Amino acid sequence: MRSQQDSAGGLRHLITLDGLTRDALTAILDRAESYRRLPGQPAYEGRELAGVTLANLFFEPSTRTRASFDLASRRLGAHVLNLDLHSSSRAKGESMLDTIYTLEAMNTDVFVIRDSEAGMPEFLIDHVAPHVSVISAGEAHVSHPTQGLLDVLTIRTHKRRFAGLKVAIVGDIKHSRVARSAHQALSTLGTTDIRVVAPQALLPAEGEFRAAQRFTRIEDGIAGADVVMMLRIQKERMAQSAFLDDAAYFRDFGLDAQRLKLAAASVLVMHPGPMNRGVEISSQVADGPRSVIREQVNNGVAVRMAVLASIAATLTRHRRPL
Amino acid sequence: MRSQQDSAGGLRHLITLDGLTRDALTAILDRAESYRRLPGQPAYEGRELAGVTLANLFFEPSTRTRASFDLASRRLGAHVLNLDLHSSSRAKGESMLDTIYTLEAMNTDVFVIRDSEAGMPEFLIDHVAPHVSVISAGEAHVSHPTQGLLDVLTIRTHKRRFAGLKVAIVGDIKHSRVARSAHQALSTLGTTDIRVVAPQALLPAEGEFRAAQRFTRIEDGIAGADVVMMLRIQKERMAQSAFLDDAAYFRDFGLDAQRLKLAAASVLVMHPGPMNRGVEISSQVADGPRSVIREQVNNGVAVRMAVLASIAATLTRHRRPL
Amino acid sequence: MRSQQDSAGGLRHLITLDGLTRDALTAILDRAESYRRLPGQPAYEGRELAGVTLANLFFEPSTRTRASFDLASRRLGAHVLNLDLHSSSRAKGESMLDTIYTLEAMNTDVFVIRDSEAGMPEFLIDHVAPHVSVISAGEAHVSHPTQGLLDVLTIRTHKRRFAGLKVAIVGDIKHSRVARSAHQALSTLGTTDIRVVAPQALLPAEGEFRAAQRFTRIEDGIAGADVVMMLRIQKERMAQSAFLDDAAYFRDFGLDAQRLKLAAASVLVMHPGPMNRGVEISSQVADGPRSVIREQVNNGVAVRMAVLASIAATLTRHRRPL
Repeated sequence: MRSQQDSAGGLRHLITLDGLTRDALTAILDRAESYRRLPGQPAYEGRELAGVTLANLFFEPSTRTRASFDLASRRLGAHVLNLDLHSSSRAKGESMLDTIYTLEAMNTDVFVIRDSEAGMPEFLIDHVAPHVSVISAGEAHVSHPTQGLLDVLTIRTHKRRFAGLKVAIVGDIKHSRVARSAHQALSTLGTTDIRVVAPQALLPAEGEFRAAQRFTRIEDGIAGADVVMMLRIQKERMAQSAFLDDAAYFRDFGLDAQRLKLAAASVLVMHPGPMNRGVEISSQVADGPRSVIREQVNNGVAVRMAVLASIAATLTRHRRPL
Repeated sequence: MRSQQDSAGGLRHLITLDGLTRDALTAILDRAESYRRLPGQPAYEGRELAGVTLANLFFEPSTRTRASFDLASRRLGAHVLNLDLHSSSRAKGESMLDTIYTLEAMNTDVFVIRDSEAGMPEFLIDHVAPHVSVISAGEAHVSHPTQGLLDVLTIRTHKRRFAGLKVAIVGDIKHSRVARSAHQALSTLGTTDIRVVAPQALLPAEGEFRAAQRFTRIEDGIAGADVVMMLRIQKERMAQSAFLDDAAYFRDFGLDAQRLKLAAASVLVMHPGPMNRGVEISSQVADGPRSVIREQVNNGVAVRMAVLASIAATLTRHRRPL
Repeated sequence: MRSQQDSAGGLRHLITLDGLTRDALTAILDRAESYRRLPGQPAYEGRELAGVTLANLFFEPSTRTRASFDLASRRLGAHVLNLDLHSSSRAKGESMLDTIYTLEAMNTDVFVIRDSEAGMPEFLIDHVAPHVSVISAGEAHVSHPTQGLLDVLTIRTHKRRFAGLKVAIVGDIKHSRVARSAHQALSTLGTTDIRVVAPQALLPAEGEFRAAQRFTRIEDGIAGADVVMMLRIQKERMAQSAFLDDAAYFRDFGLDAQRLKLAAASVLVMHPGPMNRGVEISSQVADGPRSVIREQVNNGVAVRMAVLASIAATLTRHRRPL
């Protein structure tokens, strides 16, 4: 795989947090803070992406991530193409590369890609032109870098540090790109006590999540935790892990107010959304005083703005002269 | 239900015309006139919605109303998210409130919602944040406030007054949000001679349309009328009202040139669109000299601009400081 | 059919290249060159379409042509409505004309229409208001004028002349709007040696392509050619022309490196996309040194900008005063 950074260290692509240094992550988080506006404040509007064309290539439906990238791009002045690739190009048998080359020839500068299969983002960064960038908006179970960034930004805002934190990630770790990206970001930023908590069948393979401890009982995993990140569980995975229904899963792995008492008093409750209320999390907890779930969404736009602005600044150096 | 106006009388939401005063309606109509541009003139472009993010939440397909809100918003400088909620969030089981809270967290300021079921707009204004507004773009059979406003703006443009006018609304009154909102607006503005004209089965329940007289023969209903508003009839309703087919309905309730002679010579013929030509209205009448149907569409954009600009001005006072 | 030009010679509509003079075509190509930016250069951004509203009416799915018109319009400052007319208006039985009149009433200035059936663009220019323009983005087998323009712009860029060129168009000529528009543009610009090359069943009717010679063997058709334009072949057409499968078609009519040697050494290989690699063209040729296929895409945006800007300038003269 080509590097995500250019020779001057500028961000060129973002498809994984793996390999990004603490300084690189911190620079993005700092920039994101400068873009962040609380709900009720006027959104940040800038010209950092003026003249930039961005194409959202979503092979997986997604309301929230797509809206987040869309708003982040347009508030910085980009032209955005939203392509639904189910219904048009694929139906016509046009290959992915031909689609990319076509859009490049229309002076598209940035591709944002979301795919339920693994491999496409890396394939793309190996093939795009030197003046074109690729951002992953979610790749199979592998990587979701902007989600990882928004997660650590949310934690940093409340905890001001990463060293010494106890962070529990609970749910279908095995298939979760959210867990993988959070684990990478936290490790890089200095968190050493990371716990992955799941039914045995949903724990990751042995070689993965090396920095983390493994738990199969939620009570053990979240004991004393400063942060509890709940993951979305999916029906088909639930069956795989021997749970017959939502109620059974909630009984053994759901986060309710009672269980939350096992965590630190100042615990942050996080969830990437969309939530299955009453399955992996109770509404009382999701909407309760320890929840920062909506802040995560707010940070999501800020983080995407920061990534896009960083990449646009790098691209400027790789442009062809007029 | 929370009030649609804030304590200073500023428009915060618009989901029904019920309860809005004559002055409030008149202010919107005046503002709409300032935004109105005839076809062939360059459209009004302004910055009244600069920095505002608006999400169109359409649970019902609609080409014209969606395009009208979309253009009204963008011509005033807003960022617009068009969300098709059939295919994404609902499929994922994400609840409506979580969708709303998510978009609020992305600094969405205004929700425009269209739904074939009743209740969602009111539910939303009870739950959105103090700096967020809700506009109904059509709610079941209950309310379609911007349609009501464009209807009275069209009438005002030609008649210069509401008192003393005879207005007949003809068609499926029972299931019509258009009829309900027109009836509210006209009553508030001073029209006392309102007639609702329908086959018996499509007349509204007794307690409704209190300001109106009821007719089951179109000839009686439109006699001497200054305005005839035809409604779109739907196949399934036609059967309900004992009409076997389009031709039978047209024979008894369709507006043709012959019947139109029963109305005043200066009558205005209106229709909210899309028309079933040859079912509720003949093409000769729809495209004839008394028709103001295209003017209604033109006024629709102006009215939506006026509502959006009024709401944006109110929101400014409810913003969180930076 | 009404003229595509107004009485002062300004471009009002563009639905066919037939009838446009050499000067008219050259003016568009010159303007397109001024808008063209190579991939890697920042895209041209202007205000030529400020205040203009353009509606894309696509009755046929199309990723690339729609994206090309969309970007061309927005980079010149237009508001763009993308209407998918399968799912909304047609489902509601709203007639095409009512859709057009509705959008005109919303101050839409330009309609871009793509349709798999013939006749709609001409029908529209006979019905739109004097201040409204129609552009075809592909009409059945009949016409694809902006494709024809981008094709000749690509040729002009490399060959600097049209007289004396040998141009072979290869594939399903009979059903190809691309071939028809290219043939018209080339003839007008002075190319006299045009060859249409196809299996007997896919050659056009006798009266068509009068300026062209006909070939049923690709080897004969491309011999000595300065330009080879390959067309996309479709499964159902292939069967019609007695080819059983992709491999059989490629064997007899595909362009591979071996066959390409029959053309001039400086030959340009063109394709309107999306390509069926291994059916009408080999990847070696499509991605090889003689291919200008991606340049065609790049020129497509420039040509659409030029057409839109020319039309907008004409419309200014036909506006109603404020």
